[in-house]
Amino acid sequence: MAEVILLDFWPSMFGMRTRIALREKGVEFEYREEDIINNKSPLLLEMNPIHKKIPVLIHNGRTVCESTIQVQYIDEVWSHKNPILPSDPYKRAQARFWVDFIDKKMYDAQKKIWATKGEEHESGKKEFIEVLKILEAELGDKPFFGGDDFGYVDIGLIGFYTWFHLYEKYGNFSIESECPKLIGWGKKCLERESVAKSLPEPEKVTELLSEYRKTILVE
Amino acid sequence: MAEVILLDFWPSMFGMRTRIALREKGVEFEYREEDIINNKSPLLLEMNPIHKKIPVLIHNGRTVCESTIQVQYIDEVWSHKNPILPSDPYKRAQARFWVDFIDKKMYDAQKKIWATKGEEHESGKKEFIEVLKILEAELGDKPFFGGDDFGYVDIGLIGFYTWFHLYEKYGNFSIESECPKLIGWGKKCLERESVAKSLPEPEKVTELLSEYRKTILVE
Repeated sequence: MAEVILLDFWPSMFGMRTRIALREKGVEFEYREEDIINNKSPLLLEMNPIHKKIPVLIHNGRTVCESTIQVQYIDEVWSHKNPILPSDPYKRAQARFWVDFIDKKMYDAQKKIWATKGEEHESGKKEFIEVLKILEAELGDKPFFGGDDFGYVDIGLIGFYTWFHLYEKYGNFSIESECPKLIGWGKKCLERESVAKSLPEPEKVTELLSEYRKTILVE
Repeated sequence: MAEVILLDFWPSMFGMRTRIALREKGVEFEYREEDIINNKSPLLLEMNPIHKKIPVLIHNGRTVCESTIQVQYIDEVWSHKNPILPSDPYKRAQARFWVDFIDKKMYDAQKKIWATKGEEHESGKKEFIEVLKILEAELGDKPFFGGDDFGYVDIGLIGFYTWFHLYEKYGNFSIESECPKLIGWGKKCLERESVAKSLPEPEKVTELLSEYRKTILVE
């Protein structure tokens, strides 16, 4: 068994966080693609019996589940380079707050845009734009959420950026006109090798999710 | 303004976490009761404009929101005594996993027991007992979740213990017969001064929530 194994699913914005964190630290890892829709592997079910979800990080045979916990674990174990969380406790708390905000508010809102219709779709679109505008205001004129350095909140949010194409297709809006700074930030993040290597093409995400959408929504 | 202020609501299991963490560290703080049901204070709305929820920790005029983030902040700022999270990264990740599990699974399930009727009530009861049994298995024969020392998972769960009386009243079950080890653990936690000082009487929780229940459920 490799020292570090990641059970993941390529379009997962949560899996992307862990991939980026490992690459920021220069950690070699074995990437194992999971068929989470149709056929979860016995290893996934064994390693994450509580949630049965990806990403699952396996380090020397021991499991760490949940992307935000994985990113913090990676930052603590490979602490020699590219710190992900700030060292100041207050700044750490703020970074954790924003990632928690993304997890509590963004995932459900975005899903309503492409996986529901009618009123639910409209309310999802509204919520999603509100969430984006809050994040746009928090980013302000800083290059990254934490300031000059790429860090925890950037890792927490950037996976969603590859899904923006999907949201625009089904939400019929332009994220760049609503939140130009976020788009600039996303492009800057993609200049980092760790990010560029970990994010799929937006068009591929849209293609896969459009197919999936057909199975859950009757047009 | 006091150095440390806590905006809180006495029956909140989330507020209890932060109270306990401050007391574990011997931090003096000004406790300000919020009327979160009828009349949130301007300070609460100013300090937590995103979620507008308690608990809010104010330290030297700066705000930290969300109980789990507050507990980690307190552990990092007052690191000289009674460590809350383990120092080993893997054990830290495990502790974070269980508190995250409690937040994702326990709150919604417990609320269905006392705030809904019929099918939803029944499914909440079933889910809640499943969650408790998973936690009972994780505790095993250890005195505390992390082993011999009181820590992060204990702080994350103990607030719910004061609500068990309410769940038993409306769920018509005995938590002690389902999960005797958890009850033993709760009693042991209450031997700590930080916990005993931070938890209300279960009967008072039941009384308040039974009144609230009347306003949301037509009997």
